[in-house]
Amino acid sequence: MAKQETKKAIIREGAQLIHSKGFNNTGIQEILQAVGVPKGSFYFYFKNKEDFGLQIVDYFEQTMLRVAETYLTDRDLPPLMRMKNFFNAYRTHFEKTGCRQGCPIGNLTQEMSDLSEVFRKRIASIYRRITTNIETCIRDAQVRGDIALTLNSKDVADFILDSWEGAIMRMKLDKTTRPLSLFEKYLFDTLLASYPGNAGHTGTY
Amino acid sequence: MAKQETKKAIIREGAQLIHSKGFNNTGIQEILQAVGVPKGSFYFYFKNKEDFGLQIVDYFEQTMLRVAETYLTDRDLPPLMRMKNFFNAYRTHFEKTGCRQGCPIGNLTQEMSDLSEVFRKRIASIYRRITTNIETCIRDAQVRGDIALTLNSKDVADFILDSWEGAIMRMKLDKTTRPLSLFEKYLFDTLLASYPGNAGHTGTY
Repeated sequence: MAKQETKKAIIREGAQLIHSKGFNNTGIQEILQAVGVPKGSFYFYFKNKEDFGLQIVDYFEQTMLRVAETYLTDRDLPPLMRMKNFFNAYRTHFEKTGCRQGCPIGNLTQEMSDLSEVFRKRIASIYRRITTNIETCIRDAQVRGDIALTLNSKDVADFILDSWEGAIMRMKLDKTTRPLSLFEKYLFDTLLASYPGNAGHTGTY
Repeated sequence: MAKQETKKAIIREGAQLIHSKGFNNTGIQEILQAVGVPKGSFYFYFKNKEDFGLQIVDYFEQTMLRVAETYLTDRDLPPLMRMKNFFNAYRTHFEKTGCRQGCPIGNLTQEMSDLSEVFRKRIASIYRRITTNIETCIRDAQVRGDIALTLNSKDVADFILDSWEGAIMRMKLDKTTRPLSLFEKYLFDTLLASYPGNAGHTGTY
């Protein structure tokens, strides 16, 4: 394999193992072994395990933002429909994969927030980027009159992302997508439908 | 120290380290060293690391259920006030402790759900017990007419616990209790206040 290909293979395999087992619980040796790369070559590609971990975070971010942007910025659809499609796409994915692994960003949040300031700040920036995509949908929906203008778009976007991460965690625990369905139900039927001052759900999504 | 005292000290210290660093990331050796117990004695108290881990889970469960039951089953107060006090007590605790560590049960959910069926089932039972306490408050509030009878008490209790765990995770990431405040705001001002068919918030909490 060419150097860049080998590095990519190490990152892909590392991402897979870290997503399943956690960062500190995954050994560099087992990643290299899975890729079929000799022991000594890790430091040729990465400065140290932290440098490697941050590149794994980049990889997770790219994957998640690609999905978020595909669904949440699709201007051909009404904003609440975009959000429905986004959460539905992940629920379908988790149904297919046996409710395993959960959210790679959520997992690292839980594991690394108190262990490394570098990781914590890096992960927090990913949360902010995804929140911004959700916030844009909320504001678009407000402009269309689909949800109340009294709703603080930033606050509700944060609450939505946090609740969704909590639902994914429970899904991983109970091995059922029921928590994701409940999240979607209360999000669309209550929080975004009947906020005080809201004229009510317009039925456009 | 007497045998039982030593075992308790190992569990207390182990719980502290696991809460901070995770189960797989905590070495038996560092726990014993912190307690001042000789290396070889661990297997006198515990069958293996899994047995030890499950006793740590018991310890976390006792702590969390004690808090949950103190607040959520206080029949002298209206049910929504009990819930407010419960979430407020944790928010105050996290404010005092710098938003560190998060929920020990949530942490283990994230870390262990895919790694050990024994842990997964044990942790799931704790979630169920706490959900039951919340569900009882919801039903009591329905009997009083504080929230709509159309609300499914089990579903909403699960959603509340999951969202709260997600908020704690975000708090641990951003090092601010803002996610907990947002959770409380949307829970009490929207979800439990304006569910379709609800006559409205009675102001009794």
